[in-house]
Amino acid sequence: MKNQRPLILITNDDGVSAPGLRALVSVMAELGEIIVVAPDSPQSAMGHAITTNSTLYLNKISKDSDAILEYSCSGTPVDCVKLAVNEILKRKPDLCVSGINHGSNSSINVIYSGTMSAAVEAGIEGIPAIGFSLMDFDWNANFEPTKSFIKKIASEVLENGLPDGVVLNVNFPKLEEKDIKGIRICRQAKARWMEKFDKRKTPQGRDYYWLAGEFVNQDKGEDTDEWALEHNYISVVPVQFDLTAHHTIQNLNTWKWNE
Amino acid sequence: MKNQRPLILITNDDGVSAPGLRALVSVMAELGEIIVVAPDSPQSAMGHAITTNSTLYLNKISKDSDAILEYSCSGTPVDCVKLAVNEILKRKPDLCVSGINHGSNSSINVIYSGTMSAAVEAGIEGIPAIGFSLMDFDWNANFEPTKSFIKKIASEVLENGLPDGVVLNVNFPKLEEKDIKGIRICRQAKARWMEKFDKRKTPQGRDYYWLAGEFVNQDKGEDTDEWALEHNYISVVPVQFDLTAHHTIQNLNTWKWNE
Repeated sequence: MKNQRPLILITNDDGVSAPGLRALVSVMAELGEIIVVAPDSPQSAMGHAITTNSTLYLNKISKDSDAILEYSCSGTPVDCVKLAVNEILKRKPDLCVSGINHGSNSSINVIYSGTMSAAVEAGIEGIPAIGFSLMDFDWNANFEPTKSFIKKIASEVLENGLPDGVVLNVNFPKLEEKDIKGIRICRQAKARWMEKFDKRKTPQGRDYYWLAGEFVNQDKGEDTDEWALEHNYISVVPVQFDLTAHHTIQNLNTWKWNE
Repeated sequence: MKNQRPLILITNDDGVSAPGLRALVSVMAELGEIIVVAPDSPQSAMGHAITTNSTLYLNKISKDSDAILEYSCSGTPVDCVKLAVNEILKRKPDLCVSGINHGSNSSINVIYSGTMSAAVEAGIEGIPAIGFSLMDFDWNANFEPTKSFIKKIASEVLENGLPDGVVLNVNFPKLEEKDIKGIRICRQAKARWMEKFDKRKTPQGRDYYWLAGEFVNQDKGEDTDEWALEHNYISVVPVQFDLTAHHTIQNLNTWKWNE
């Protein structure tokens, strides 16, 4: 096995043509044999949605190079991972990377993020997985400063694997490479979105809403991803998909459930 | 405040007309003032998806009784909670209940489930929240046996609140009330779906896929939700939305991230 180049599955939620995905392809091509299976349209904020009531299509496409196997998929980021593993790949990949997302997926955003849900799905399937995001929503964001760090992080994971049941949520500050202070292992900050729906009227006079909102971080901990990013570090949060709040079970067992 | 009836927000992912939601409405009407905000179409397996690239509509509707305020929403279960809290309700609800889902949301299904994502969203907004699911996908499933237990569980949560950052994932076995052995606090079983895509051809000869699969539980623990359900108990899993794998941080800090 060690003689074989690692097999790396690449996906995202911004769609197969997104510059962030192209940047990730260019880094991963240095590390192994790569295959891209990504949504054919933007799928941001799709969370862990899967397509159960509709059909799925895969299209073989050619983007950066004919040497790279690429597919676009009509489904969600999680569908992409499931189809790649079950219908396209001949063997289990050694690594799944998702992104680079155009925009942050730090703190509570991990729950809404299609990028991170794809990485989590790979984790559920037993594949070491990493989601990468840059704090810049611009389609023409500069991904160059992230590349050496992504190569480092992916290499470490290929070398060491990841703890059982854990994937990595990696976020980059929007900075030049020389201004990035380094990589920090963090916990997810206790932050959330305060919604402010934008209520409008259709030309016919019917009310409708746009979801808008403001991100509010009330967590002052210096061990959080938000702190790291504000202080020019790359944040790495180990993310688990066992959602059990184990620390509360003893207390909940004292309740009078069966009386 | 104690003189006021509790305000209870009800939602689901099977849509506002689903019999499971109607059963939940009938139980909650005994406990407080209720308001229903639920999707206008089935939204199963939508996970924590939110609608950011499209508009949202709310329609005031009347179902079981004109005395109950009900809205259908064009978005996902998570959108329903956000719209209810920010655009409809005058005060923060004392409880949010989601379901009763037609089908199990035990173990890893918590991640794909729109029912549970709605409850999690309420939890993020600081509202005590519970997702209820019955292990029966049938539209005409018998929800009667669940009602006394749902009343009990919701009453306990209204009385005690829930630990910070935790919502409950409650699953019912498909049994008559007399055959249910009681309520057990559990952890999420380490189980997953093994996909088997059903590959077909369109009338024009193009390949397409249906997501199918088999649920596989290799977790033999007697403290899991799967064990409880198999042994005729109602499973209650405390679910958290801090996804940080805190137990791995020390180990990850020994890696050579910054060399």
